Amino acid sequence: MDMRRLVGRNVLRIRKSKEMTQERLAEVSGFSQQYISGLEKGQRNPTVVTIYELSVALDVDYLDLLKPDAQSKREKE
Amino acid sequence: MDMRRLVGRNVLRIRKSKEMTQERLAEVSGFSQQYISGLEKGQRNPTVVTIYELSVALDVDYLDLLKPDAQSKREKE
Repeated sequence: MDMRRLVGRNVLRIRKSKEMTQERLAEVSGFSQQYISGLEKGQRNPTVVTIYELSVALDVDYLDLLKPDAQSKREKE
Repeated sequence: MDMRRLVGRNVLRIRKSKEMTQERLAEVSGFSQQYISGLEKGQRNPTVVTIYELSVALDVDYLDLLKPDAQSKREKE
């Protein structure tokens, strides 16, 4: 399982479902827009504390940023 | 939610349920016994990749290392 890419896809999907821009998520979370951009591309390896802080900013359960998505389930087959 | 302590409690509980020593988990996961000791005490802030590698070494789903335990649920009340 490529955790970097999975977390990136989850953050991107959830952020868009909340109609938040990367700039807005950056503002609310305290991370830079560049960090969020890289995270969503699967280029970051966030810590559990960072995951929790992002989940608070997105107002979702932190597990939602970590759960397998459809793509990762296909990759597992 | 104190993610450091939660992950530490989950790793300790699961490791013991598998009757693995810290040394054995260190050997299987590739992390040092000191790292695992600190992690179980809530003193580390592991990345999602580290969480996944530990879950493979413990032969559990990575989400099991991240899910709230009874204590974190009490803390949330």
